[in-house]
Amino acid sequence: MKKSIDIDDMVQRLLAGDRRAAARLITLVEDGMEKSHEVMKRVYPHTGQAMILGITGSGGVGKSTLTDQLIHKLRKQGKTVGVVVVDPSSPFSGGAFLGDRIRLQSHSQDDGVYVRSMASRGYLGGLSRSTYDVIRIIEAMGMEVIIVETLGAGQDEVDVIHIAHTCLLVLTPGMGDDIQAMKAGIMEIADIIVLNKADLQGANTSLRHLQSTLSVASLKGKEWIPPIIQTVSVASKAENIQGIDELTAAIARHHEYLQKTKVIDQIKFERVEQELGLIFKDELQKLIFKGLKGTGKKKKYINSIIEARADPYSVVEEVLNTYLVPRQ
Amino acid sequence: MKKSIDIDDMVQRLLAGDRRAAARLITLVEDGMEKSHEVMKRVYPHTGQAMILGITGSGGVGKSTLTDQLIHKLRKQGKTVGVVVVDPSSPFSGGAFLGDRIRLQSHSQDDGVYVRSMASRGYLGGLSRSTYDVIRIIEAMGMEVIIVETLGAGQDEVDVIHIAHTCLLVLTPGMGDDIQAMKAGIMEIADIIVLNKADLQGANTSLRHLQSTLSVASLKGKEWIPPIIQTVSVASKAENIQGIDELTAAIARHHEYLQKTKVIDQIKFERVEQELGLIFKDELQKLIFKGLKGTGKKKKYINSIIEARADPYSVVEEVLNTYLVPRQ
Repeated sequence: MKKSIDIDDMVQRLLAGDRRAAARLITLVEDGMEKSHEVMKRVYPHTGQAMILGITGSGGVGKSTLTDQLIHKLRKQGKTVGVVVVDPSSPFSGGAFLGDRIRLQSHSQDDGVYVRSMASRGYLGGLSRSTYDVIRIIEAMGMEVIIVETLGAGQDEVDVIHIAHTCLLVLTPGMGDDIQAMKAGIMEIADIIVLNKADLQGANTSLRHLQSTLSVASLKGKEWIPPIIQTVSVASKAENIQGIDELTAAIARHHEYLQKTKVIDQIKFERVEQELGLIFKDELQKLIFKGLKGTGKKKKYINSIIEARADPYSVVEEVLNTYLVPRQ
Repeated sequence: MKKSIDIDDMVQRLLAGDRRAAARLITLVEDGMEKSHEVMKRVYPHTGQAMILGITGSGGVGKSTLTDQLIHKLRKQGKTVGVVVVDPSSPFSGGAFLGDRIRLQSHSQDDGVYVRSMASRGYLGGLSRSTYDVIRIIEAMGMEVIIVETLGAGQDEVDVIHIAHTCLLVLTPGMGDDIQAMKAGIMEIADIIVLNKADLQGANTSLRHLQSTLSVASLKGKEWIPPIIQTVSVASKAENIQGIDELTAAIARHHEYLQKTKVIDQIKFERVEQELGLIFKDELQKLIFKGLKGTGKKKKYINSIIEARADPYSVVEEVLNTYLVPRQ
């Protein structure tokens, strides 16, 4: 049996919502080999319709519990939900990892929910490239809302969150004092600010800091001023949850704003632009490495740089002139 | 006055240790424009001799205080020290930012110390590319030890820490329970494990967990088993600092190990390999964009993908076939 037939078949099953097909295709794509192109070529035309919701914030602010609550809420509204959790297995991410998994697994019997975790490293072509592909695959599966949860540190993660249509920045009261330093970041990334654990001490101070930061922004004539939603969302204390209704209402308002102003078109454009740029870089590098392969030249070049007989910029110029000719 | 003469002059001043020349050259390089190539071509031959020390760990574990202590120690040994702090201005990095700056500024009157902070985003060519260049510039300035401090989340940061000769992973007792999940990460990244805040509750449990993790590794016949150094390094409590002597001794032992086994040569090779790869990608992308510029084709391509009339992999193939011919 030809491999291409396998992929055709698996993509057909993916489009029908088959979870095992999704898992196998995601694995193929994460491996980053030639076959991943075949997969993505077939998947792309069936994507682009889902609403993408980003959830970001430091470790311990309660992103996973919020994600869990949002899934419940969206399911009640009859929407199917895909979740991509970036960086659960980082050696530095602290305590929440196992608990998160268990929490999200409470949806594992629900065909309307598909959860995929991604480690923060080890992807050929980088984390953002792999994450983009995985989001596309989950879209093709038919999920109407895709939640992308990231730790919010590192350029790849920031890139990933930029393709979200609506981005929630989750903060906790303890971070109140740093609001001044965060101004630029907040206004750039957050469409909605979630002040989680709003029952903790210091919540009022944090809220006032945030409000004054945002009121400065509103004076600058921004069209969308991020609302601040206070939530209490504690793991395994369902009876104490507060603010999720307000949060989903704010998400709906932002969604409406994006449609009305056509800002959504710009976001979709930038998403494809980013994806295209990453694929370009990879393919170009492959072209070059094909030229160098087996010649032993790469090692010679590197050693000449180590021994200060050359610099990498001159080496790159030389290699490009040797192996590639731009068509005029 | 020609710009190239300016750069020659500034690089000469850099090599003489001029801090203002360093700052201006770093700014040029961070901007990522054509001039940065001219700078780096001149800087490279004067680099490659410094010892590069990586310090990584989550926010709040005390990386900056340890860095500060190591600077003091290294200065007492008569060594000049460059410091590159990655990600101080992340909107998510939590509380330590301003305090860090102030702490490291205590060295600002010392010509033997040069500190540079890098934001985690907004660099053309990416964070790791910019960081590599900045490290080279500080090396060319004559700094004998370069400390690279990162938050340790995100692929770029992990890449950056991989070029360090000796990498300290800083943990605190609170993280003890997650040691099992961290095994792979620890063994891959850390040359020395620093258990900071070793006076806190739970330190003994964390220590035992770490020791058993590492003893498994030692059975696998690894040549270098990361020592665990317990430190107490609290901001603005100089009298309470413990373990810094042990830490610098461990760093010296690892340095010796790298020299004796020639592992250092492999690290230096990989550093150049990474730098070369990133420069390749950028230059190749520029080549392509030059071909597309002003033709309006990029927009057309992106729109065809958004409208599901094409997929990005096919677009990349088409553009490569149109604009580049590999020389045979």
